[in-house]
Amino acid sequence: MANMLVFGHKNPDTDTIASAMAASYLINHIYHLDSEAVALGTPNAETEFALNHFGLDALRVVDNADTEEVWLVDHNETAQSVDNLTDVTVSGIFDHHKINFQSAAPMWLINKPLGSVATVLFYEFQNAKLDIPAHLAGMMASAIISDTLLLKSPTTTPMDKPALEALAEIAGIADYEAYGLELLKAGTDLSSRSAKDLIDGDAKSFDMNGQTVRIGQVNTVDVEEVFARRDEIVAAMTEEMTADNYDTFILVVTNILDSDSDILVLGDNLSTVEKAFDTTLVDGRASLPGVVSRKKQVVPPLTDTFNA
Amino acid sequence: MANMLVFGHKNPDTDTIASAMAASYLINHIYHLDSEAVALGTPNAETEFALNHFGLDALRVVDNADTEEVWLVDHNETAQSVDNLTDVTVSGIFDHHKINFQSAAPMWLINKPLGSVATVLFYEFQNAKLDIPAHLAGMMASAIISDTLLLKSPTTTPMDKPALEALAEIAGIADYEAYGLELLKAGTDLSSRSAKDLIDGDAKSFDMNGQTVRIGQVNTVDVEEVFARRDEIVAAMTEEMTADNYDTFILVVTNILDSDSDILVLGDNLSTVEKAFDTTLVDGRASLPGVVSRKKQVVPPLTDTFNA
Repeated sequence: MANMLVFGHKNPDTDTIASAMAASYLINHIYHLDSEAVALGTPNAETEFALNHFGLDALRVVDNADTEEVWLVDHNETAQSVDNLTDVTVSGIFDHHKINFQSAAPMWLINKPLGSVATVLFYEFQNAKLDIPAHLAGMMASAIISDTLLLKSPTTTPMDKPALEALAEIAGIADYEAYGLELLKAGTDLSSRSAKDLIDGDAKSFDMNGQTVRIGQVNTVDVEEVFARRDEIVAAMTEEMTADNYDTFILVVTNILDSDSDILVLGDNLSTVEKAFDTTLVDGRASLPGVVSRKKQVVPPLTDTFNA
Repeated sequence: MANMLVFGHKNPDTDTIASAMAASYLINHIYHLDSEAVALGTPNAETEFALNHFGLDALRVVDNADTEEVWLVDHNETAQSVDNLTDVTVSGIFDHHKINFQSAAPMWLINKPLGSVATVLFYEFQNAKLDIPAHLAGMMASAIISDTLLLKSPTTTPMDKPALEALAEIAGIADYEAYGLELLKAGTDLSSRSAKDLIDGDAKSFDMNGQTVRIGQVNTVDVEEVFARRDEIVAAMTEEMTADNYDTFILVVTNILDSDSDILVLGDNLSTVEKAFDTTLVDGRASLPGVVSRKKQVVPPLTDTFNA
């Protein structure tokens, strides 16, 4: 059994799974460690598509770390990690988020504001002159596609495209745009998901000037497919707002092909939301052309307007 | 004027100065930023030797950051930085210490437990395929020599030697061992330094099971040269212990040529110190063969014994 676990955040996405695999491979080969990549949950539909495509099994799922040392990928905050993180030593981190971390000793912490952690790791492999196996390159390419929405999200940086191109070649992906669309579509099969799962799957809560604003996001290739289930979704949002005392609930429905979103807004502060996006809500709904990133395009204007 | 400052810690040493220069050059060329390397103090004798050798001026000294964004090198903790650090945005960090940092947004944080930050930066230049100017390579080589005591300190890692060899070649240093000895000796001209400066220059305080232990370190090529000034040094240590309520004061006098140290210990807990190093203090003095690193060889056994 490995004496070190490598894992990403809870509710794992493709970047968290691929980066755990890549980081474990990297540190085993470069630092001669004996690590195992694991996951804090089962793969989502998109990740499952990628694993199947490259003939890989899902990672073993753990709730707690049972090794003394661990490496984290795609997160560095305790709340997003294993429940017993404070009982173990974090020897290294590969990430691309804001930092909120303390260590007792010098450690590896490679955090770069790039499109995906897979991009960060690609350059670490290059740096170490370590070849990337084809199946791993395929997962890393999938992670870049997933986190950057095929290089279209505003979180995309100039370092992501060369990494994706190189990884696609190693993985034998002849046309990464075609593969990428298939991958993203695999993550948007919403028919099998409950309304509660849709609004919860990727939701985060934000305090905005004393108001609790819940923001969920659903990726799709057909926005109307989601709004066809409007009544069901509104019921689930309303129930959750009451149960968890959210003041406002915003569901961002993103068309990954057109790089546009529609929002559905319930609760208080509707005029504040209208002002933030310079739009008018009709039955709680509005179109936000060009908006795909919650982190870069939804949260900042809301925060500014709530605080104005 | 540059719109971004890059600087290392207070009481700058050669690695902090060289890394500020290297990081500023790197980010200006790779990220096309407009940064200036500055220092939080004047160069010590060793750094001055290196600057003179490579025909460079000392960095401009600042107390506060007067740009909105800054990059830190060789430190990440607020207490070691500019006084107004909390008023500015830290956009990036290159470091090799333990981590104690929070950011509001995704950022660059490259922390690796290597011998020097100059080593970390050498591999970032390689990664970016960016040539290092000869004078900068000379400063970076000096930093590696300084922080690893010519690759002899136990903080030395397998990544330091190849970096030093490559940098020495770029800098036109024909024999880096000969240059390194000259550099280290330049930092050990103790005759011009007051006793207070000797005990304070590199001292840090540690809480060990409720006892405040002050540990200073002086590098020399002749341990007896330091002990010839014993009365003067004991007086300075005693005065400081009283003024600052230290329970124990340990001065580590390190012979950088032989890689050995003698310690001089005043105050309480003398038997604990003896036990930690399995030695006997004679007039408060003992020899510790093979000990050169406070971080790796002095603090850990003391901490263990105080807590036993």
